[in-house]
Amino acid sequence: MSVENNTVQPLRAAACSSNELAEPLELLPEGGVASAQGFKAAGIHAGFRADPNRKDFALVAADEPCAAAGTFTTNVFCAAPVIVSREHLDGVSYGTARAMIINSGIANAATGPIGLDTARQSARIAAEAVGCTEDEVLVASTGVIGQHLDMEPFKTGLPAAVQALSVEGGHDAARAIMTTDTVPKEYAVTFSGDGLGYDGVTFTVGGMAKGSGMIMPNMATMISVVTTDAPVTANDLHEALVDAVNVSFNKITVDSDTSTNDTCIAFASGAAAPGAAPMEKGSDAYAVFASALKAVCSGLARQMATDGEGATRLVTVNVTGAANDEDADKAARTIANSPLVKTAIYGHDANWGRIAAAAGRSGARFNQEDVSIDIMGLPVCRQGLTVPFSEEEALARFEDPEIVLDIDLGAGSAQTTMWTCDFSHDYVTINGDYRT
Amino acid sequence: MSVENNTVQPLRAAACSSNELAEPLELLPEGGVASAQGFKAAGIHAGFRADPNRKDFALVAADEPCAAAGTFTTNVFCAAPVIVSREHLDGVSYGTARAMIINSGIANAATGPIGLDTARQSARIAAEAVGCTEDEVLVASTGVIGQHLDMEPFKTGLPAAVQALSVEGGHDAARAIMTTDTVPKEYAVTFSGDGLGYDGVTFTVGGMAKGSGMIMPNMATMISVVTTDAPVTANDLHEALVDAVNVSFNKITVDSDTSTNDTCIAFASGAAAPGAAPMEKGSDAYAVFASALKAVCSGLARQMATDGEGATRLVTVNVTGAANDEDADKAARTIANSPLVKTAIYGHDANWGRIAAAAGRSGARFNQEDVSIDIMGLPVCRQGLTVPFSEEEALARFEDPEIVLDIDLGAGSAQTTMWTCDFSHDYVTINGDYRT
Repeated sequence: MSVENNTVQPLRAAACSSNELAEPLELLPEGGVASAQGFKAAGIHAGFRADPNRKDFALVAADEPCAAAGTFTTNVFCAAPVIVSREHLDGVSYGTARAMIINSGIANAATGPIGLDTARQSARIAAEAVGCTEDEVLVASTGVIGQHLDMEPFKTGLPAAVQALSVEGGHDAARAIMTTDTVPKEYAVTFSGDGLGYDGVTFTVGGMAKGSGMIMPNMATMISVVTTDAPVTANDLHEALVDAVNVSFNKITVDSDTSTNDTCIAFASGAAAPGAAPMEKGSDAYAVFASALKAVCSGLARQMATDGEGATRLVTVNVTGAANDEDADKAARTIANSPLVKTAIYGHDANWGRIAAAAGRSGARFNQEDVSIDIMGLPVCRQGLTVPFSEEEALARFEDPEIVLDIDLGAGSAQTTMWTCDFSHDYVTINGDYRT
Repeated sequence: MSVENNTVQPLRAAACSSNELAEPLELLPEGGVASAQGFKAAGIHAGFRADPNRKDFALVAADEPCAAAGTFTTNVFCAAPVIVSREHLDGVSYGTARAMIINSGIANAATGPIGLDTARQSARIAAEAVGCTEDEVLVASTGVIGQHLDMEPFKTGLPAAVQALSVEGGHDAARAIMTTDTVPKEYAVTFSGDGLGYDGVTFTVGGMAKGSGMIMPNMATMISVVTTDAPVTANDLHEALVDAVNVSFNKITVDSDTSTNDTCIAFASGAAAPGAAPMEKGSDAYAVFASALKAVCSGLARQMATDGEGATRLVTVNVTGAANDEDADKAARTIANSPLVKTAIYGHDANWGRIAAAAGRSGARFNQEDVSIDIMGLPVCRQGLTVPFSEEEALARFEDPEIVLDIDLGAGSAQTTMWTCDFSHDYVTINGDYRT
């Protein structure tokens, strides 16, 4: 099966990770959750964790009440802070908010009525410290499930966090929300309002996230906060956020487990163009803003997949040629979740049979004789049959830190991209050996 | 969270693995695919594998043409032998058959028209050797995907296999179909026809299976052959087989991957009661026969889960209190497939939060405050909240080779049982290190 040269054309000109920013978006180096005008953040040690050197509490605050929107876990076992944040966003997941508090260490999940009280009390304490109403505070927690949160760290921590609020504090905040994450996750972009009805204005969208697996015993996963200084109504912000989350956070999978605490919140201050009209849905400005929000969420999502527990490789799964969006998602998700695909990548094995078998059982409709597969731009399957390829060349391409799989189902024109990581011995060690 | 004594009542009187045989079924020790009257089997080295000491070809043959039925993979990438066996069962998955041939080593999957030709030719060769028509032969293959089968081992192997046919040959056949399996899998039960309209007759249902994960690079999984000497029509046999497979092979998961070659075939010779009327659907006799078929399929399925790649524990997931069968299956399957649950069991961690989170994201409808969970008969969650338990006691119970999880969703009366195995370092080694 090994040959000198492969004469079959690859599916793409270059192995494409779909992470390049399109015009007019520009990366903001060192950007984060407090890069947009009108926001400050802080990350401190408040006492939720025993280690005094570990930050465990983040505060993101807007200078004024502003538009806010959220998306939350669909897990039946949803945590108390998720319930409270939903309520504070008027039960419709968008409204007005001023601040967000996040603790790490304990998830306040599976804690019943006591946990709900705790989450509400923490919002009350934050409101007092920040100077806003209780329902303008959103709350999130991440950590061990089934344990109760102590109120004391909120009481002492909130005044300290308000004191520490700054633009640079965004980096501390990103650190404070980490659990098994090995690196903080931040990403920000800017775009010019020239020609969009906001001449001379530069807008910023930036955010932070945490998550690297559903995680260590009783830990909960993904939390993200994104801020922008673009003027957008809460309703439109919510629509843009849902769209962005669907092509970013909802397209990553480390171990197929959705947590009890997943939360993504967006704030829009409008502070870059005070008094200007909101970017309305349907306008060019809104379209660019929505693409910026997608870019930030995707940037953060890719960082989360890269930091998957025990991961040695980021894996990008591009499915094209699907009959519809749902089929594209089914195929990509099943491939990205397959332990056999993930262990093969860990083993640097260009094993297209496992990719094909995963697509085949995904429920997506296609004919096997129409399927093409490339691994790192190397054609390995055409018309459902093996294409001879150089094993040496395949091994060389696996040296890349990002592994790109392209699968063309040949059944239509729908496509999607998912991100995951490989499956290593360390994943088993991290998740299996914690308490023994 | 650690306490001396746990006063909460467990969900069941004893941790129940659902594997006890109910009256009038009796285990047939050392039974297998050729235990039922009217069948013989053989397992030989035919040359599909390089190692001359490894059996790689199995033949199961009935003395006369008899009723046969099959269930097959739903994977879009279905292998050539699956297509041919479906055709030979009259396109409706039941009909008349005389023999089944199975090779290991190469799966004849993703092999296009050439592979189809090979599968048809092998049936033709078998028909000649056995002395029946080509469409009375069913075929199956297991092994590497994407490689072509050599015809030579069929030509030389089939006459040798026919020569070797015997009742004892069932054990050789079980060995010949192994791939990454570490042990052959056989199971058989008997039941008396007394009071069922077949006084004085003892009926046997026996079978063999292979499978221990979707498996090593490009390997394909699960194949099972079950035979009985009970008189059953092909149509009724098919219905009983579908029911049995749904509560056995379809309820095991090693790594959530469904293979290209999954095949389960049943033969009914009626040889225990020559000339007797068939056990008709709706009769007591049929009900007992159907329960015997379920017992054999479940016995084989449990052996497959126990032999999961890298497994150190068989895991039985009992979901009760589901709103309906579909919800019960969703919850049990999601728990059984969760890498976090499986690594926790490997780490002997009574981590109910992961079990709850898996049930919560499964799509099954329930309220978290109605959920109860036991691990090895130890209550760990009631009303969605932590129950204090002795960590020492939990660790002691994890010494058992079979780990039983009981989850009561409190949403209805539907229930199901699934089997899986834990997730160890060895799984990653087996599946990741093969070619490096």
